Amino acid sequence: MVAPFASLSEFLSVLKAMPVADANAIAAAAARNGELTKPPGALGRLEDVALWVAGWQGTDRPHCDRPQVIIFAGNHGVAAQGVSAFPAEVTMQMVGNFRAGGAAINQLSKVFGATISVHELGLCRPTVDFTTAPAMTEAEMVAALAVGWMAVDPATDMLVVGEMGIGNTTSAAALAAALFGGGGAAWVGRGTGVDDVGLARKVRVVDTGLALHAPLLGDFLQVMRCLGGLELAAMAGAIARARTLRIPVILDGFICTASAAVLEKAVVGSLDHCIAGHLSAEGAHGKLLASLGKEPLLSLGLRLGEGSGAALAIGVVKGALACHSGMSTFTEAGVLGG
Amino acid sequence: MVAPFASLSEFLSVLKAMPVADANAIAAAAARNGELTKPPGALGRLEDVALWVAGWQGTDRPHCDRPQVIIFAGNHGVAAQGVSAFPAEVTMQMVGNFRAGGAAINQLSKVFGATISVHELGLCRPTVDFTTAPAMTEAEMVAALAVGWMAVDPATDMLVVGEMGIGNTTSAAALAAALFGGGGAAWVGRGTGVDDVGLARKVRVVDTGLALHAPLLGDFLQVMRCLGGLELAAMAGAIARARTLRIPVILDGFICTASAAVLEKAVVGSLDHCIAGHLSAEGAHGKLLASLGKEPLLSLGLRLGEGSGAALAIGVVKGALACHSGMSTFTEAGVLGG
Repeated sequence: MVAPFASLSEFLSVLKAMPVADANAIAAAAARNGELTKPPGALGRLEDVALWVAGWQGTDRPHCDRPQVIIFAGNHGVAAQGVSAFPAEVTMQMVGNFRAGGAAINQLSKVFGATISVHELGLCRPTVDFTTAPAMTEAEMVAALAVGWMAVDPATDMLVVGEMGIGNTTSAAALAAALFGGGGAAWVGRGTGVDDVGLARKVRVVDTGLALHAPLLGDFLQVMRCLGGLELAAMAGAIARARTLRIPVILDGFICTASAAVLEKAVVGSLDHCIAGHLSAEGAHGKLLASLGKEPLLSLGLRLGEGSGAALAIGVVKGALACHSGMSTFTEAGVLGG
Repeated sequence: MVAPFASLSEFLSVLKAMPVADANAIAAAAARNGELTKPPGALGRLEDVALWVAGWQGTDRPHCDRPQVIIFAGNHGVAAQGVSAFPAEVTMQMVGNFRAGGAAINQLSKVFGATISVHELGLCRPTVDFTTAPAMTEAEMVAALAVGWMAVDPATDMLVVGEMGIGNTTSAAALAAALFGGGGAAWVGRGTGVDDVGLARKVRVVDTGLALHAPLLGDFLQVMRCLGGLELAAMAGAIARARTLRIPVILDGFICTASAAVLEKAVVGSLDHCIAGHLSAEGAHGKLLASLGKEPLLSLGLRLGEGSGAALAIGVVKGALACHSGMSTFTEAGVLGG
């Protein structure tokens, strides 16, 4: 099979035809939730999570038995501007680390029983520095979206998308600024750990990009093309594919959320199948989540990317679904109070 | 073997002789943490958790491979005052549900690979209503502490203690008020879901108990004896035993934390081997954690007890330790930046 789009306008058409949550399944899950052996509401947010997954999986007994973690790796022309504390070679080196099983995301995937795959997006051919020209051609972006689209296993029941790409917090900040306004200063953070001089440089780089591409930025898919990156586009493609398959998605940190936000701005409701896995320590992530109306499950100060925060949240989702789908009802257990 | 105490003064002596964390192991774990393939600090709170467990387990590669969940169930004379939304029979019925595997804690234990055991503490013989006399005799409290003490599996590497006992949020609020001041109104919450009238009744019940036992409450173990419950004393006994075995403990919600707080007030530092698993929706839990200087790992609005919030936090701890102990170093992975 191939991805059902060969242009950005075709991708937009796909987005506009996405399925919605199954209201009957949500109602059935809510009825079941009311009969479980606990005081009403005593499982708090876990109950909301269970009903939300029920709607996407179309069942009153939702599950998270086959979670999938996909990591997309790309390089950024803008890294040459000195916006990262690490050199660009680290992207390729970390891909090796993912494949050897040595990174944080490998350990987290193992703990929560997730499959993990890594997709390189032309690491030897970085995107164009977006302060000089659009980061990608339309063909490049469509190809990256398709890589993400094809990477999703239709048999999975919960998706995490992560990224690796030196320079990509700068790209993500540029996306957020283009989508929600406020300029670079409102969205740039320290990424892997730049100092104050590096931070100021990132702000200038973002503002330069925003000014250069301003005429195109009213079209939200053009925002991704001009300011994004290959791995960011791939993440968006995977999130869109999950929607067509009714697979719920746990969003990771700032870069993942910025990529996803492009879809939401392009077609409102595109992220209804996504939950925020965690609040990252990257400065503007909280504001970005608030802009999308998403409340994070975890807030533990992570700022690693790789899908690590979302993978950690798989544990919470598994717990929520195990309770919802596995607990006895008052009647089954012979407990008063139902 | 038997518990090494036959009186409250002997239990206090045991508390005073507890081991402390292994500073060398913490230093070795910190050194390792600095070499792992991630930017410094990028795993946020997970890094703190790993170092903390390292100190108690005495190794630079801490683990959570054999977590244990223990539930203690007890009944409360004070329940006759109408302080719960559920009748006292529910305690016994829920014990049956735990044994049959139908409760939330059973599902969570299964998800995170924890063993689970349930200990009844004389459900047919509730504690005395603490508005009329001390809840327990010294012999009863010592026996309950010993049940908790003996319930801990020395081979476990992470402990969760939970409870079931209709009326026990009232008892826990009384403990908190006696330990930290402020009266019933500062510590009473809705428990399983009492209405405003029930809430006002709980406050009066707590204040009556505080006034009646005031002469004894300067002795913090007497606070437990006068106002606590059998399952609360058993939790304290298990937490103390874990300390002698250098097993880290994940605290659950309001009732568990109030029970644990008795130990901390009796001997400062008694809870250094404990982490707060979550912030419960029970009103005063946040204030109680703050009084103990504990920051919760999760905040998801749970208010179920049974050890459920702490069990959910096992996932976070497992993730933290898997990253710390399983990741490659910069040198091992051939990644620049170490």
